[in-house]
Amino acid sequence: MTATDRRRIVRYRGGEFVDADDAIVAEAPMEIRLAGVPLAVLMRTPGADRELVLGFALTEGIVLKPAELAAVEPVGGEPPDSRWELRLADGIDVDPERFRRNLYATSSCGVCGKASIDAVRVTAGPAPGGPRISASLLESLPASMRRRQPTFDSTGGLHAAALFAPDGTLLVVHEDIGRHNATDKAIGTLAATSWPIGERILLVSGRVSFEIVQKAAVAGIPFVAGISAVSSLAVELAEELGLTVVGFLRGESFNVYTGAERIV
Amino acid sequence: MTATDRRRIVRYRGGEFVDADDAIVAEAPMEIRLAGVPLAVLMRTPGADRELVLGFALTEGIVLKPAELAAVEPVGGEPPDSRWELRLADGIDVDPERFRRNLYATSSCGVCGKASIDAVRVTAGPAPGGPRISASLLESLPASMRRRQPTFDSTGGLHAAALFAPDGTLLVVHEDIGRHNATDKAIGTLAATSWPIGERILLVSGRVSFEIVQKAAVAGIPFVAGISAVSSLAVELAEELGLTVVGFLRGESFNVYTGAERIV
Repeated sequence: MTATDRRRIVRYRGGEFVDADDAIVAEAPMEIRLAGVPLAVLMRTPGADRELVLGFALTEGIVLKPAELAAVEPVGGEPPDSRWELRLADGIDVDPERFRRNLYATSSCGVCGKASIDAVRVTAGPAPGGPRISASLLESLPASMRRRQPTFDSTGGLHAAALFAPDGTLLVVHEDIGRHNATDKAIGTLAATSWPIGERILLVSGRVSFEIVQKAAVAGIPFVAGISAVSSLAVELAEELGLTVVGFLRGESFNVYTGAERIV
Repeated sequence: MTATDRRRIVRYRGGEFVDADDAIVAEAPMEIRLAGVPLAVLMRTPGADRELVLGFALTEGIVLKPAELAAVEPVGGEPPDSRWELRLADGIDVDPERFRRNLYATSSCGVCGKASIDAVRVTAGPAPGGPRISASLLESLPASMRRRQPTFDSTGGLHAAALFAPDGTLLVVHEDIGRHNATDKAIGTLAATSWPIGERILLVSGRVSFEIVQKAAVAGIPFVAGISAVSSLAVELAEELGLTVVGFLRGESFNVYTGAERIV
């Protein structure tokens, strides 16, 4: 499966209807299982599926570090890669029922059953003190991410999430119809080689809500920036845990909601 | 609680950092209970809470119509209105455990455990044949909704969802940090007096994903339009159920993905 589908559509422009062929964002369900028990279904844009599963397992606290997993693997089913299994390492035990009981329904926020700042504090370690970055470096990040969003270019419709080194080097970018999935894909990619992720900058193309800050905090990422608005609960969580949150990062301006000491 | 919070922030503009007072989007958890059992936690923007609970209960198929509910009421707790109870009407029985087992985790798509087109078909009745509307009426809807988004004006950061009559009359608009919540608030408002909702037009400020079309289908709303992109699975579901889906509704242009016969 790919990140886009082709569809015949009807375009309306300048008072005329025209039949056209269009690229649209792919969306398809993926089931995540733990020890054979269905744990979650994500509606995601296919691509970087393994990274998504690893990122989700970590940022939602199913496992505390990659070493607790023996494998992340597709378990067959139709269509391919629509069902993934988390296999735990020897000696690691997680009760899927306990985890599922925590999985309340949410609206556009990912998993919020553990939706309290205290709950995140338990899973997240202390935030790194750095990085310290300049305002001009921060301004340059959206354009850097934008140059690596091929599916957005063809469909105009995807969210993206990227991780940057403190010197502005783009380490990874992923796209998805869901902001949380894009974030989990980016975190999952780096987590495969380094955990916690540490002094990186997470940039998301949309809003910064509670759950985005939660995912960053659990991954040990101290700096979160978004192109759009920031929610009250996202700021409160970041403030409690000592993270930096920047919103409306557009052109040569931005707002710093908390943790301004990391911008020099 | 209100839809915005005030915060002290640091603004960066034209090379200068300035302390400022800013309005930011409020986000807070709300728990929904059924017969005393916690069923779901939504991260939502406070406001129109009762409408949100009713809309969620209907569009997620917890109950099939408003008459199955004796009451939707806050049950105390701190802060106020953070916990709501669905009280079933006499003779109505819903097993909360069965429902909760269907509630998988999702990423920015609401509840996807029932994420198959077949599952939606069971809950949704046949789509109404109408409405038939003109392209120029359709073009006028975003500006009409935009004039009724006060919180967006102050924060620049909220999603909105509106329902329109076939003549373009704006019936209701709600804002929320979550697209799905805004949609449930709009549906819940009209559902209190009329169910299924029928020949109305649902307009959302963001992407049209599977779950948005699902909510419209379950509410009997045949026409869904979005300002932004449309996903593959949203189009497939709409096509199966005979709904119209329009995307990229901006200025004097839009794309029709399925159900073009409703645009004349």
